[in-house]
Amino acid sequence: MNTIAKQTNPATVTTGPIIGSRKIYSSPEGRPDIAVPFREIALDPFADEPPFRTYDTSGPYTDLAATIDLEAGLPPIRAPWIAARGFHAVQPRAVKPEDNGFVPEDKLVAPCPAAQHILAARDGQMVTQYEFARAGIITEEMIYVAHRENLGRAAALDWAAERIEDGESFGAEIPEHVTPEFVRSEIARGRAIIPANINHPELEPQIIGRNFLVKINANIGNSAVTSSAAEEVEKLVWAIRWGGDTVMDLSTGRNIHNIRSWIMRNSPVPIGTVPIYQALEKVGGDPDKLDWEVFKDTLIEQAEQGVDYFTIHAGVRLAYVPLTARRTTGIVSRGGSIMARWCLAHHKESFLYERFDEICDIMRKHDVSFSLGDGLRPGSNADANDRAQFAELETLGELTKVAWNKGCQVMIEGPGHVPMHKIKVNMDKQLRECGEAPFYTLGPLTTDIAPGYDHITSAIGAAMIGWYGTAMLCYVTPKEHLGLPDRDDVKTGVITYRIAAHAADLAKGHPSAKLRDDAISRARFEFRWEDQFNLGLDPDTARKFHDQTLPKDAHKVAHFCSMCGPKFCSMKISHDIREDSLRQNGMEQMSETFKAAGSKIYVPADAPHMEGTSD
Amino acid sequence: MNTIAKQTNPATVTTGPIIGSRKIYSSPEGRPDIAVPFREIALDPFADEPPFRTYDTSGPYTDLAATIDLEAGLPPIRAPWIAARGFHAVQPRAVKPEDNGFVPEDKLVAPCPAAQHILAARDGQMVTQYEFARAGIITEEMIYVAHRENLGRAAALDWAAERIEDGESFGAEIPEHVTPEFVRSEIARGRAIIPANINHPELEPQIIGRNFLVKINANIGNSAVTSSAAEEVEKLVWAIRWGGDTVMDLSTGRNIHNIRSWIMRNSPVPIGTVPIYQALEKVGGDPDKLDWEVFKDTLIEQAEQGVDYFTIHAGVRLAYVPLTARRTTGIVSRGGSIMARWCLAHHKESFLYERFDEICDIMRKHDVSFSLGDGLRPGSNADANDRAQFAELETLGELTKVAWNKGCQVMIEGPGHVPMHKIKVNMDKQLRECGEAPFYTLGPLTTDIAPGYDHITSAIGAAMIGWYGTAMLCYVTPKEHLGLPDRDDVKTGVITYRIAAHAADLAKGHPSAKLRDDAISRARFEFRWEDQFNLGLDPDTARKFHDQTLPKDAHKVAHFCSMCGPKFCSMKISHDIREDSLRQNGMEQMSETFKAAGSKIYVPADAPHMEGTSD
Repeated sequence: MNTIAKQTNPATVTTGPIIGSRKIYSSPEGRPDIAVPFREIALDPFADEPPFRTYDTSGPYTDLAATIDLEAGLPPIRAPWIAARGFHAVQPRAVKPEDNGFVPEDKLVAPCPAAQHILAARDGQMVTQYEFARAGIITEEMIYVAHRENLGRAAALDWAAERIEDGESFGAEIPEHVTPEFVRSEIARGRAIIPANINHPELEPQIIGRNFLVKINANIGNSAVTSSAAEEVEKLVWAIRWGGDTVMDLSTGRNIHNIRSWIMRNSPVPIGTVPIYQALEKVGGDPDKLDWEVFKDTLIEQAEQGVDYFTIHAGVRLAYVPLTARRTTGIVSRGGSIMARWCLAHHKESFLYERFDEICDIMRKHDVSFSLGDGLRPGSNADANDRAQFAELETLGELTKVAWNKGCQVMIEGPGHVPMHKIKVNMDKQLRECGEAPFYTLGPLTTDIAPGYDHITSAIGAAMIGWYGTAMLCYVTPKEHLGLPDRDDVKTGVITYRIAAHAADLAKGHPSAKLRDDAISRARFEFRWEDQFNLGLDPDTARKFHDQTLPKDAHKVAHFCSMCGPKFCSMKISHDIREDSLRQNGMEQMSETFKAAGSKIYVPADAPHMEGTSD
Repeated sequence: MNTIAKQTNPATVTTGPIIGSRKIYSSPEGRPDIAVPFREIALDPFADEPPFRTYDTSGPYTDLAATIDLEAGLPPIRAPWIAARGFHAVQPRAVKPEDNGFVPEDKLVAPCPAAQHILAARDGQMVTQYEFARAGIITEEMIYVAHRENLGRAAALDWAAERIEDGESFGAEIPEHVTPEFVRSEIARGRAIIPANINHPELEPQIIGRNFLVKINANIGNSAVTSSAAEEVEKLVWAIRWGGDTVMDLSTGRNIHNIRSWIMRNSPVPIGTVPIYQALEKVGGDPDKLDWEVFKDTLIEQAEQGVDYFTIHAGVRLAYVPLTARRTTGIVSRGGSIMARWCLAHHKESFLYERFDEICDIMRKHDVSFSLGDGLRPGSNADANDRAQFAELETLGELTKVAWNKGCQVMIEGPGHVPMHKIKVNMDKQLRECGEAPFYTLGPLTTDIAPGYDHITSAIGAAMIGWYGTAMLCYVTPKEHLGLPDRDDVKTGVITYRIAAHAADLAKGHPSAKLRDDAISRARFEFRWEDQFNLGLDPDTARKFHDQTLPKDAHKVAHFCSMCGPKFCSMKISHDIREDSLRQNGMEQMSETFKAAGSKIYVPADAPHMEGTSD
């Protein structure tokens, strides 16, 4: 098993900061041992503004001071926290040929050599963030995410309440300031999760819940021809560089066990998987041959590797399958269709549903969070909110309570394809059925008529459902329904979903969300072009677009832009107006003067009717 | 003035149908003289579905049977209708050197040689669609748009009421079937307009109003270096090819009068302009030098050319300008800033406001519709819904009533930059203040942090405000805030806004909006790849994306796609399930059987609680 088919070349992953910014670390008060990463964007020295800090999911890859060595893996920053909890090291499950898709020896990608001790909780020993939270214990992960979520809130404290007031949160309870205790209480209530497998010490923890910043997930998967593990790690690195909060590895086929080891050891973000995909591979791709043993074995395999959350389609019950018969697009979830196929072939209830207790026990031992899969989600607007979809959601609500009773962290997956007017009922029903467990939706796509643009059809739905209360949005790339996303598609998908998530945060009234909009708007108004580029989600593209029209460096300090040119620039005119007015009077007084003048031409702003317009 | 600086090459505009479709014409019952264009998409012969018809704004350019000759202009299909109304031909205003930006003779682009008689209404003679509607007269334009809007509704009649019921229209009154009388009554109430200058006989009429399909506008403008008028016409042709319902020509500088003549004579869609831009050019670019005479002269110039709607920033009143002093981004509308500058420089009320009656008289004579400009719209989320914005909106409401009294058609422009939770109040206030006159918004952008992606930040807001009741959405391209859109940007902007408009139509419950979604979803489920591409908004891009992963032609009939491959395809599994089940029992009975069996594993779908999961 130690033959290395192809050498890993660590140089192939993207490193270095996003242009104009640098990595910084900040510690919560009293905890110098905890270093939370942020990205700091330097602004024009003449702007008289401090560097702007942003949330940063990109890990050490964007830290110029970090040495990236994929074979060694990332620094296990959680190791001391986990060690203090006294879990026992277990003999790892032996790797089997089917774990790597029966790949021939000469094609085998070697596993990541980074050292790892597999840990597990003993029976009755607290291990999950949920269990600690219920017991009133604040973990280091909770302190970490509280500090991370508080970015900008200290500066915003004087108007944080006003911001929250200004937003419409649809019942979310967003605090002015996030304390570790608030994080604990949200997790204890099941309203938030920190996906954090105890076998993933490299993780920089994140929190997913309605009362925190909206998160996004990016999916990656292996290529048909894998030339190196580094190429697969690069997909992860690329997705988190642009703002993916979590990454789901949907790989199938050869080498997936070993490639997953490279991903886990080199991922600073939570990694999710759909274990049924690998289980299906192990039985040769025939759903009818699946059984509990092969599934259970796969759960243990992946949990020991450190996967942070599993999509489990336990809500696809035998009795629901016929409800999909009249659908326009049947069952479109892969996991859902696999389980539906199995149920019908055997005329039996789903083994995921029947064995749910055992699944909980396995996942709890390592603190793998549930992402309860929506196997019957609609695949078209025509099927949105139908009985099959909602029957499954009701079952997911039942399973949520079972998982909580077992001590597990849970989030719930949601649709899919839903026209705008049917989105909110999804959110409301999910909150009600699932006891406010975090919702994690794919889009939803608000129309089906734009293949090639489904990042946009879905960003509309994602922004709205994020506003209504969805905690994490699974991205959709332009290739959805058509093909496998390439590097550009992944970036486009991530940026598009950062837009949706941020638009949702703004609308909910998150105290500090507005800071970045305001900073970029000031830069725009003051013609600080470089600042405008660098404060945006994608400085490279913004700069490139600007240079296509006005390539000269001098234009980046010009007090006009390409849309109007120097004669027409409305912002320039605004500046002139402002200066003129301030020179004369001060604008407010001027307005009063105009009104007080009593002249017929200065009609009061609030005059209800205009009698004539041409005197 | 007849020197032709550069020869026009008619071959440079894009002609021919969008792949997989053809132009057809259909006549309203009893009116064989009226031919309304549609696009018909051929489907797989094995699909057992008729060709799919779509709304089609692209004009004769996509008609293989049409001969395109830019010098001759498009066929003046409205000429007989207009002739029957008995307007008098007027001696056109003489073209002046300033109309073309004082371009030197050797750089002058010749005007379009297509024959044109300039028509005007006499005092007291009915001319506008509003006047006819108020008088109870149904015009040919009304019959035309009724037939155009009814696309698909005949087929959908049996469930049209259900569709409308299913949607959430926020008070819109969408009929199951659009009659010419309904069109007339909506126009008479001021709730809809048909922008249709009597000097634009080449127009294929469209209706803009809350109870009709949501429309989109694309902006075009001249390049710094114009090599031929055909290049400028091509921008129009390209924008309407992908679905622009109206086009605003925002050109400035040299040759604009003559280039506009080419655009007018070759445009099948309503053309809008912002006359203050050209007026400013005529006074050398200095807003302080503007006056009523130069503006009036420009209105007459453009109205005689056939422009269908004018943006008039008459709501930027002197007293409102100081309200912008504390804004983050001041005044961002070009027209707004020009007028604000003028007001302050002269310490006078806006001449647009003071002369509004006279503006109405000029516009009425040719039936130029008002697009009352929002010169004080917010340029950032920070400034959304502020006093300056709403004060202007209130004035626009007053002006709407003045224009109606003068017999003019009116729509109202709206923002801009607005976070999601502040969008609906814009719509509600506009309806209230402006007596339900159609709203025409730019986006709005729901966040400011993504330069390079503002087609997406704004599509979110556009879809929402369209749903709430906005009648037309002005597109935003990826280059917004950064540079001038190129051909690809225009296409991306138009497709993105077609998505937003269609998502809005679906959510409002437009009776036939769903037909296209359903057709594409069926194609998707039945692996009709070519149909899926061709039914989409952009078949070329969809096909290209598919081919990047699965280039072989055989894959376009394959019963799987690139995302899962043959083993994993969930849709294939769904088909297998459906077939199996139908073979056995019929799915519905099966579901009942499962429930009735009473076996412990077949828990009823609606069981409120699950006691155990692992027996």
